[in-house]
Amino acid sequence: MFVMDLGSNFAQWKKQCVAKVDLSKKGSIDEDICDVVRFINLSENFFTTSSCSGRIILIDGVSDCEDVQKQNSSWLFVTHQMCNKTDVISALKRSQGDAVFKFEPFVLHVQCKRLQDAQLLAVRSTHCLEVPLSHKGQLLVEDHYIDFLVEVANQKMQENFRRIKRFDDCLKSAIHPEELHSELPDFADKKPIYKQRRKRTQDSSQAAVCLNNKENASSDECDGLDYGLSLFK
Amino acid sequence: MFVMDLGSNFAQWKKQCVAKVDLSKKGSIDEDICDVVRFINLSENFFTTSSCSGRIILIDGVSDCEDVQKQNSSWLFVTHQMCNKTDVISALKRSQGDAVFKFEPFVLHVQCKRLQDAQLLAVRSTHCLEVPLSHKGQLLVEDHYIDFLVEVANQKMQENFRRIKRFDDCLKSAIHPEELHSELPDFADKKPIYKQRRKRTQDSSQAAVCLNNKENASSDECDGLDYGLSLFK
Repeated sequence: MFVMDLGSNFAQWKKQCVAKVDLSKKGSIDEDICDVVRFINLSENFFTTSSCSGRIILIDGVSDCEDVQKQNSSWLFVTHQMCNKTDVISALKRSQGDAVFKFEPFVLHVQCKRLQDAQLLAVRSTHCLEVPLSHKGQLLVEDHYIDFLVEVANQKMQENFRRIKRFDDCLKSAIHPEELHSELPDFADKKPIYKQRRKRTQDSSQAAVCLNNKENASSDECDGLDYGLSLFK
Repeated sequence: MFVMDLGSNFAQWKKQCVAKVDLSKKGSIDEDICDVVRFINLSENFFTTSSCSGRIILIDGVSDCEDVQKQNSSWLFVTHQMCNKTDVISALKRSQGDAVFKFEPFVLHVQCKRLQDAQLLAVRSTHCLEVPLSHKGQLLVEDHYIDFLVEVANQKMQENFRRIKRFDDCLKSAIHPEELHSELPDFADKKPIYKQRRKRTQDSSQAAVCLNNKENASSDECDGLDYGLSLFK
């Protein structure tokens, strides 16, 4: 693993990357992270390669498969907004394996021109939920528990949206106007293009920031917010 | 936020840091991560500032407190090994607020001499569990569900131990023998000293790797293992 100095070729590299085909499952940017993604891509020193505004998902995994890497799982339900109990219960009825209900906070993968650009952007904290709900297709909990769970997930989603807003505000005050393209580059107004991580890690090495925003109110070793910078291979 | 070039003062800085008082809740290194921590601290280019071998915890949070940052929570149960149902249920009976059952994988915070050292070490993947079990002191699920949950958490803990072993093996083959201290420095055999993150982030800026090992079998955007490097303020 190594980091190339991409400073001098960054603009060219950015242009190439955003021109690639979107291989993500959804194929488009989540609405609630659009402003942030657009602003980052307008900046000369950054561009995004992956993003999610946060989601509530219900996944059906294979029962009794010890190797987590080999588990095939299907998605029973996904929303990037608040969810309601009826939808979750209805999706849960289709579980044939081990269903897990999850909340995942917003995440951004950002390529940065220089290390100091990456440092400007870096923020990470913990904020998750991961609850097994069925085993071999059999529901493990009662309806009132799912009710409670939906409430907890929706609270986390609301907090997540507040954090996106806060991140957006901080970003706009941290990036100087002169670092923004004075005119939209030809790719800035196009649908930003993401590739799946599995694909991306096969590329030549690159410096990137992974921003994910998680809550961890309990840990003795973590603050609510954890500032970090990631360089991905 | 900025990164200092600590290359020339690294040895001195390492000596100072490991001599500080351990402010962590536990006050000592978890047994299952001891070998890894010791090996890292023997290397000239690294030292650890925080570690956890992975844990299963039951936390009692304050009900109806919307601001997650302000929640005071108490620990009802914690183990760095496999857990048993009786202990979890017994601890759960002491819940007066919102109890959450969690599995957290091993984590290491490592200070690195140079950026390329940090890149050598960097690994991250997702592997968690976070399940609300009580609300305002009232249990939300039945015993058989806790039984299932304990089983899931223990499977994750086993996988976590396999990953520590794998990480240890990889580390030992990646770090050249000449990069290790030929003799134990005076601090290498002492109880390594950790400070709470809240304290640490008040220090002068420093380059560090945060290694945490999480499983995410479901996400369309993450591989099981995610390689990254973090520079902490």
